[in-house]
Amino acid sequence: MLSLTEMGQRACTSKYEVQKLTTAKKNEALTAVAKALVEEQDFIIEANAIDIETGKKKGMHPGLLDRLLLNADRIKGMAEGLMQVVDLEDPIGEVLETFERPQGFVIEKRRVPLGVIGIIYESRPNVTADAFGLCFKSGNAVILKGGSDALNSNKAITQVIRKALKSVSVNEDAIQLIEATDRAVTQEFMKMKEYVDVLIPRGGAGLIRSVVENSTIPVIETGTGNCHIYVDEYADLDKAVAIIFNAKTQRIGVCNACESLVVHEKVSKDLMPRLVESFREKNVLIRGDEATQSVISCEPATEEDYAKEYLDYIISVKTVKNADEAIAHINKYNTKHSEAIITENKEVAEKFLNEVDAACVYHNVSTRFTDGFEFGLGAEIGISTQKLHARGPMGLKELTSYKFAVRGDGQVR
Amino acid sequence: MLSLTEMGQRACTSKYEVQKLTTAKKNEALTAVAKALVEEQDFIIEANAIDIETGKKKGMHPGLLDRLLLNADRIKGMAEGLMQVVDLEDPIGEVLETFERPQGFVIEKRRVPLGVIGIIYESRPNVTADAFGLCFKSGNAVILKGGSDALNSNKAITQVIRKALKSVSVNEDAIQLIEATDRAVTQEFMKMKEYVDVLIPRGGAGLIRSVVENSTIPVIETGTGNCHIYVDEYADLDKAVAIIFNAKTQRIGVCNACESLVVHEKVSKDLMPRLVESFREKNVLIRGDEATQSVISCEPATEEDYAKEYLDYIISVKTVKNADEAIAHINKYNTKHSEAIITENKEVAEKFLNEVDAACVYHNVSTRFTDGFEFGLGAEIGISTQKLHARGPMGLKELTSYKFAVRGDGQVR
Repeated sequence: MLSLTEMGQRACTSKYEVQKLTTAKKNEALTAVAKALVEEQDFIIEANAIDIETGKKKGMHPGLLDRLLLNADRIKGMAEGLMQVVDLEDPIGEVLETFERPQGFVIEKRRVPLGVIGIIYESRPNVTADAFGLCFKSGNAVILKGGSDALNSNKAITQVIRKALKSVSVNEDAIQLIEATDRAVTQEFMKMKEYVDVLIPRGGAGLIRSVVENSTIPVIETGTGNCHIYVDEYADLDKAVAIIFNAKTQRIGVCNACESLVVHEKVSKDLMPRLVESFREKNVLIRGDEATQSVISCEPATEEDYAKEYLDYIISVKTVKNADEAIAHINKYNTKHSEAIITENKEVAEKFLNEVDAACVYHNVSTRFTDGFEFGLGAEIGISTQKLHARGPMGLKELTSYKFAVRGDGQVR
Repeated sequence: MLSLTEMGQRACTSKYEVQKLTTAKKNEALTAVAKALVEEQDFIIEANAIDIETGKKKGMHPGLLDRLLLNADRIKGMAEGLMQVVDLEDPIGEVLETFERPQGFVIEKRRVPLGVIGIIYESRPNVTADAFGLCFKSGNAVILKGGSDALNSNKAITQVIRKALKSVSVNEDAIQLIEATDRAVTQEFMKMKEYVDVLIPRGGAGLIRSVVENSTIPVIETGTGNCHIYVDEYADLDKAVAIIFNAKTQRIGVCNACESLVVHEKVSKDLMPRLVESFREKNVLIRGDEATQSVISCEPATEEDYAKEYLDYIISVKTVKNADEAIAHINKYNTKHSEAIITENKEVAEKFLNEVDAACVYHNVSTRFTDGFEFGLGAEIGISTQKLHARGPMGLKELTSYKFAVRGDGQVR
């Protein structure tokens, strides 16, 4: 097993090779990898069976076991995902700007890879192939640190990818997997600033917090979404009920699901009983403030509820007097992910879109659309909830940086 | 004196007000601040005299004392700097992209302020006004933590700015200065992720390292430059000598000064004696590898020399067999700041511009041009040496983020 330093050195050698590859060569390699994953699915499924077995013995939650499971269909899905990345435009080499300066030289701002990307993720082994595909197409080398629950699966997938890269004469260190599982190694990885240009954590709030607190490598924070829907005084309540039902219940475990409602006092009496009716089908539990409790029968909401990403069939409700109060409440409790207003009043809608501080702000649209595919990026490495570098859904371009190339003829200052 | 938490809360209240200001209002405020700085220069110079006195008593280096000193001319310079920012285009509100999606809604990607910017800087008090100007014009609130040596000066400048903001009815918490000087406060400031969106350290390598290692707030790393000039086999030696002399000696204490030469073995014998001759005027000390020592009389260069940002009249020299070796040497030792090649061979030049990993890569141009003003940004908050968010000289646009505003008519997923 290589040391982390050796892995860092190998990634740095490999990054200079990967960034020089033509688009055609990168697509050839991705196609070879996709093919190999399907051809060697038995090898991967066998390794996955060990992880599943161990998970069962440890009493892993059925939901987590399902996320961990690989079968022929899911491996086919991974391969198809890579072929979709083949179809995406190569961002590398794009000239973003060219300007001539009075000193007589020309400055070209061009898009370049980030270099080495580190990804720390939890139990879904398909991330191994997905993340590799996006990082590779954007000219980066990647070092992966997956969850220990999926170690055998991740090792098998990585092995297949490396073999496929080698078969088309691409430096296989374009993907490396950290196999050590002790916490100290993860801590050490987060400090490998000399070798890794950016670290992207993908997983729950605990993982993300740990990375933000311990990493000396620049981090792109992804994920947690305490998303609100504000039902304004001028809302079309049919739209409101449909959007809220969709955003809360279509998929509860995702970061763009709605966790909290903010309701204008003038519509509370009409809206809330209809929501109770609508939520009945999915057994959604409502936790409301006093005003809400006076309109429907529900549990009381605490301060803690307002700050909570439930990822469950629960929703909190806050009643407000006007849009300003709604915006202030959202800006206080949200995680800067996705926030929606339901209103037929354009002025109030624009105010909301301007003043709410979040990656994605919606007018009469479900928050569930915050997603790379839905936004048309073709793929997604995660949803950034920070303001630096990238915000919202991140595709290939968000895995790049830029450099200035200056051509002159002897200019001095 | 306010606690850091109180300052953070005030900054967060103020940021929502600053981001709503029109361009005209922001320019009115900047003009009022520029005027006030000049009108109240006696108050500022008096406060500065205390810092200068303390510095002298502490035996501060004359160079540092000079950086600390404020006089009528320098205050006029600060005011003029702010008036230049008035003339710069307001980046806020710019629509970067608009696209309609098949689901029926329209996504608008628009430029927004970062929010609250934290700046930690060393002894130059003019940074107080400069940084405020750029952060404010780009719609951000700023919290400043200056060096304790300049505390009285920074307090006076901040006081004048806040008074001027108030006089035009702008929330004065758009600028706040941390007055506490103990180390623990700086440590606490770096963890104020809840209130501060980005932290920019401006100063020496030690300060920057400390911020990178301790901050939980996303950091934009600025500054250190171990810049190389590679003199290729096909170099015009007249250009080489002129550019090297300029890049090494025009100003030695800056991050874009040349610290190390990489010389093709075929030109070493012709180039080095001419450089010795040229450097004599400024007493530049050469530290060379063995090949260099066989051509001129000089001190030997060690591994440590190659990694060193001298900020002094010293330069290291490494001899190489070809451009590949030169590029590998530079990528190993550089700080990703600014690197130049001197050659008349376009193919080698393009290879260098492509393969050297740095914010700015130059062909036949002095590295000294890496600067916001020289690049035409109109101003500069610093030079980023990281790849995330911003790279190279950072102007107003680099102090912004973006958000997605999505307008629909009831879309659900």
